[in-house]
Amino acid sequence: MSTPTIKYYIREGLLPAGRLTSSNQARYTEDHVHRLRLIRALLELGGLSVAKVRAIMAVLDGDPGSSPRGGQVAGLEALEVLAAPAPQDGSLAILTADPRTVALVDALAERRGWHAPADGAEFARVVEILDTLGELDQRHFADRLDAYADAAERAAAADKELLHSATGGTGPAERLVVAAVLGDQLVSALRRLARSTGTAGTTG
Amino acid sequence: MSTPTIKYYIREGLLPAGRLTSSNQARYTEDHVHRLRLIRALLELGGLSVAKVRAIMAVLDGDPGSSPRGGQVAGLEALEVLAAPAPQDGSLAILTADPRTVALVDALAERRGWHAPADGAEFARVVEILDTLGELDQRHFADRLDAYADAAERAAAADKELLHSATGGTGPAERLVVAAVLGDQLVSALRRLARSTGTAGTTG
Repeated sequence: MSTPTIKYYIREGLLPAGRLTSSNQARYTEDHVHRLRLIRALLELGGLSVAKVRAIMAVLDGDPGSSPRGGQVAGLEALEVLAAPAPQDGSLAILTADPRTVALVDALAERRGWHAPADGAEFARVVEILDTLGELDQRHFADRLDAYADAAERAAAADKELLHSATGGTGPAERLVVAAVLGDQLVSALRRLARSTGTAGTTG
Repeated sequence: MSTPTIKYYIREGLLPAGRLTSSNQARYTEDHVHRLRLIRALLELGGLSVAKVRAIMAVLDGDPGSSPRGGQVAGLEALEVLAAPAPQDGSLAILTADPRTVALVDALAERRGWHAPADGAEFARVVEILDTLGELDQRHFADRLDAYADAAERAAAADKELLHSATGGTGPAERLVVAAVLGDQLVSALRRLARSTGTAGTTG
């Protein structure tokens, strides 16, 4: 990884500075290298903002790591940071949820046997995306909601299997964040891969 | 939407300025309002960077719109802009693809009957995400690739159905971009919704 990139990460408060060994050289430990990879993955592959990565790093740095219980708490906190809306310019318009969309998502959750609370952040996000699609003349997404729910359930099942089977050097909080961010990116990339054929191939 | 947000979008070159009707008032047309919604959706829901949204707007502004053929061309161009890596600080490290990962994705595409070219951007992206997951001690994602491919295929099929059925006031290029960005976000949000139950509910 290039020196300007490392300096940029340090300047942005994402990475602690290495130990200076001379005026133009710094020493980085194995932990540093891992952190560098993590930051690059979240920024460049995950497409997260610098501010979001900074907030996630702060949570991970507080992760007690060795204790699985503490790690789960930190993991949930990190996922919350991840799901929080971007601060942007501090004047985010709050979209008023359309009650018909709320009813639609409620019915979907009921039909699917999902027990997610209707006042939770996950529920609100689905409603917000559907309302925004409606605003942008793409109301038809709402009509095919079950097809997307099928896809989502399969991905969620795959996640769950992974998280329970996961072992390795990294703490549970980091594992959750990486799985959430890159897992989403993986499904999205596979979807493009599947689609890039779909249109060129048979009528399917 | 707040005035600071609108000013911010204009300053960043995302939105043309409104027609000034007095020293502190500007008039916005219906097109402006639609553009505002689109920008907000891509930035805040889609999580795209300002630079990426600017590049997409430039493509959409060149979209001949009325001609379906021209619109498809602009749409493909917009999807390319969308998939291009972020310029960041201009020193992006190019990850060397692990040949084992390439073979793995090749085998997956073969098994799935996907005919996406192995030298295409979509293929490279899947390899890059898997390699990065490996670097971050999450090699197990590669073991469950088919589960994610199932999810991706379902989403891709839903997309295809939608794009062929879509009608409305917006041009095909905009429709493709919105469907790609918010469609991904929708699957990801539904997945969180499904997952938020999965862990709290039965052992499933």
